[in-house]
Amino acid sequence: MPHDAAIAALTALLGPRLSAARADRDRHGTSEAWFPPTPPDAVAWPESTQEVSQIVRICAAHGMPVVPWGAGTSLEGHALAVRGGLCLDMTRMNRVLDILPEDMLAVVQPGTTREGLNEDLRATGLFFPVDPGANATLGGMAATRASGTTTVRYGTMRDSVAALEVVLADGRIIRTGSRAAKSAAGYDLTGLIVGSEGTLGIITELTLRLHGQPEAISTAVCAFNTLDAAVRTVMATIQIGIPMARIEFVDEAVARAFNAHAGTSLPEQPHLMVEFHGSPKGVADQAERFGEVVAELGGAHFHWASTAEERSRLWKMRHGAYPACLALRPGALGLATDICVPVSRLAEPVSETRADIAAEGLIGPILGHVGDGNFHSVLLLEPGNAEEFARAKRLVGRMAERALRMGGTVTGEHGVGIGKRALMAAEHGPAWAVMGAIKAALDPANILNPGKLLPETERNE
Amino acid sequence: MPHDAAIAALTALLGPRLSAARADRDRHGTSEAWFPPTPPDAVAWPESTQEVSQIVRICAAHGMPVVPWGAGTSLEGHALAVRGGLCLDMTRMNRVLDILPEDMLAVVQPGTTREGLNEDLRATGLFFPVDPGANATLGGMAATRASGTTTVRYGTMRDSVAALEVVLADGRIIRTGSRAAKSAAGYDLTGLIVGSEGTLGIITELTLRLHGQPEAISTAVCAFNTLDAAVRTVMATIQIGIPMARIEFVDEAVARAFNAHAGTSLPEQPHLMVEFHGSPKGVADQAERFGEVVAELGGAHFHWASTAEERSRLWKMRHGAYPACLALRPGALGLATDICVPVSRLAEPVSETRADIAAEGLIGPILGHVGDGNFHSVLLLEPGNAEEFARAKRLVGRMAERALRMGGTVTGEHGVGIGKRALMAAEHGPAWAVMGAIKAALDPANILNPGKLLPETERNE
Repeated sequence: MPHDAAIAALTALLGPRLSAARADRDRHGTSEAWFPPTPPDAVAWPESTQEVSQIVRICAAHGMPVVPWGAGTSLEGHALAVRGGLCLDMTRMNRVLDILPEDMLAVVQPGTTREGLNEDLRATGLFFPVDPGANATLGGMAATRASGTTTVRYGTMRDSVAALEVVLADGRIIRTGSRAAKSAAGYDLTGLIVGSEGTLGIITELTLRLHGQPEAISTAVCAFNTLDAAVRTVMATIQIGIPMARIEFVDEAVARAFNAHAGTSLPEQPHLMVEFHGSPKGVADQAERFGEVVAELGGAHFHWASTAEERSRLWKMRHGAYPACLALRPGALGLATDICVPVSRLAEPVSETRADIAAEGLIGPILGHVGDGNFHSVLLLEPGNAEEFARAKRLVGRMAERALRMGGTVTGEHGVGIGKRALMAAEHGPAWAVMGAIKAALDPANILNPGKLLPETERNE
Repeated sequence: MPHDAAIAALTALLGPRLSAARADRDRHGTSEAWFPPTPPDAVAWPESTQEVSQIVRICAAHGMPVVPWGAGTSLEGHALAVRGGLCLDMTRMNRVLDILPEDMLAVVQPGTTREGLNEDLRATGLFFPVDPGANATLGGMAATRASGTTTVRYGTMRDSVAALEVVLADGRIIRTGSRAAKSAAGYDLTGLIVGSEGTLGIITELTLRLHGQPEAISTAVCAFNTLDAAVRTVMATIQIGIPMARIEFVDEAVARAFNAHAGTSLPEQPHLMVEFHGSPKGVADQAERFGEVVAELGGAHFHWASTAEERSRLWKMRHGAYPACLALRPGALGLATDICVPVSRLAEPVSETRADIAAEGLIGPILGHVGDGNFHSVLLLEPGNAEEFARAKRLVGRMAERALRMGGTVTGEHGVGIGKRALMAAEHGPAWAVMGAIKAALDPANILNPGKLLPETERNE
């Protein structure tokens, strides 16, 4: 068995919180995405920063890869142990350590989930806004630079992490950032770790920026005759500067999936789902201005959620889009991919992608956080149908090309992981090697989450 | 003469755009701050990215340091050639290359000034908000992660740079970021370069995020009996979430300086200067809510700027605070320092610093971008009075300690440069060595702006 010596040392440290049992390895060897299972050699459940540091030191001494694991909800295989090694399951480090309401900050351990944090925040009048849909861990969300429905108003994890505690590849523990609103004191290491997908360090503590729960919230759904009219409404709304809290697009296939799955009776047309946050006067003003844009661009079937329950039902429906879409083709595997383009260029790649999906004979609803220029297709594939998977992957490649042609990015929020590593050269050119040089400087033995994100080298094929 | 061979090669490349003349070297050897002059060995005025790349290759081949220069307005000696070498004056690369109004982006060369860009933007309905006071170059502002009066609403340069073109220490040209609103495609190299103060690469092009010119603007000044009441008003305003566009504090000494310098007749008391941006309804709503906070905390002498001219006069007065303060002690040199703390902790370090200045027998008005928890003291020192300078530097050190004790940072916006390098270990602990490792990976010969920001090594003393 590989890594026997490391596993023995880890067992001595962790006792029953180290497991090489088949069931534990298997459970940490799959993701919500379509990638083939790759179980780690063992799973560890650390309970403190010091333990994480000791674990990493042991793994470094034995050349055993370390792959951090949060909720396992990533869509590009970030947490799969593709080169074996130790899965570091962070879910026991799930305490909210401190809430600083006056500075609108929370200090949490990385295994805390976003819903768990918001539960703890309820009585404070504050909330943590980043919402990728899944109830991911905050450590995982920071590591993948997650975003989601509220990013158009509140930003991504890049904007939401004030400070980190990180264990480096040699076991050193560092702190980055501060509790101040800004700093000009040297390199932005916080920003470097956010989005580094576990390849530069293990996040062991996060200081997160919170926002005031809005005094007033207003949510609506409206239908459009064409995809183009819906997308143009988004572009116009963003450009005139209405401060949307959410502006989500779903196409007619998703509307059909909602009707089947959530018991709604939406017209089978493209829809926008929007939300406004602010003071009662501010929200009324925003909603009025948005209504004018919709009317001008031919939107109809405007439906306002009048109660908190109805609002919550609508967003639950939106967050359930992935399983709802999967049910459109019973037994299918979902290959969810995302690209992000400048908002002014949104109409073209969305309609091209739609035509491309049809031309390939695939089923693939389109939806997205269109206020950011970010959209997804969920390709519904027959398990084991290699030819269909090959067609889907070619289509993903063409979506990425489209994103780059528009000045965008091959992934707005799902990240690189395994799934998009082959696209990094096209997006970054020689800057990809700079990422590789930083990785080599901070993790020369390539212990941390190897085989992901970075250029292939002898140690990172 | 040192670097003779490099200077000959650079002259062959640039002709008259390379100068080793005394006057050019002297002009690039001083800053607006109090540091002793350190002229570079030569000055180059590149006109294109390709030229910057060629220059850096020549300097790298000859071991000649390269120090980028924008407007020379930095306050911590960032652009001083403390180890000699070439000053790279970027002011000929000052074109606005593209304005993309629909995506609210502008593409500029690094020598473009912020006022120059805003001039070009006037007719578009958009503006670039980051405003450090000085009419700095945008390349310099990105390199130092500048911020200023509008940061409380629009963020710092960290939030405002979407993409960069950068020449690395070996002459390679890379592009970082994209035109999309967000990305999860790998390490945030844009964020790493922003704030790296010319030590990782030379910025040769910037893609900047713009904002809509607000429909309505409302500006006011109000006076407080005590510094504490003014600061508490700021804390309350931020905490209830009024989206201030500006909220600036000046103490009674600054009010006195304004009266002497700008012909105003402000009461000699602490003041807040505030501005609201938004729709007419939104601004009225914000102003009303702010008025309630002020009334509760005992503010008075509320004065609203009723015309655009009056508004502009008020902010010109604020931006002229540095020379106005200097004039409080004729012939004095200014040692301007800044710290930044969590807003909830603001009252304590401001009043402690005030007492400290008094106890040291120094003259030092206090003012700042208090909505960010960021404030400055401008210490007015007698040129050549070493004992007074020593007292001032000890005071700066105690301000920094205060900032760190509050969970803040030793510099909110002025940056590290020479002036705050000695404080980096206290702020970052072992994370400072991580910055050093990244520097060593990307610039192993320490060609780019040596002697700044990073830990001392054999090559970087």
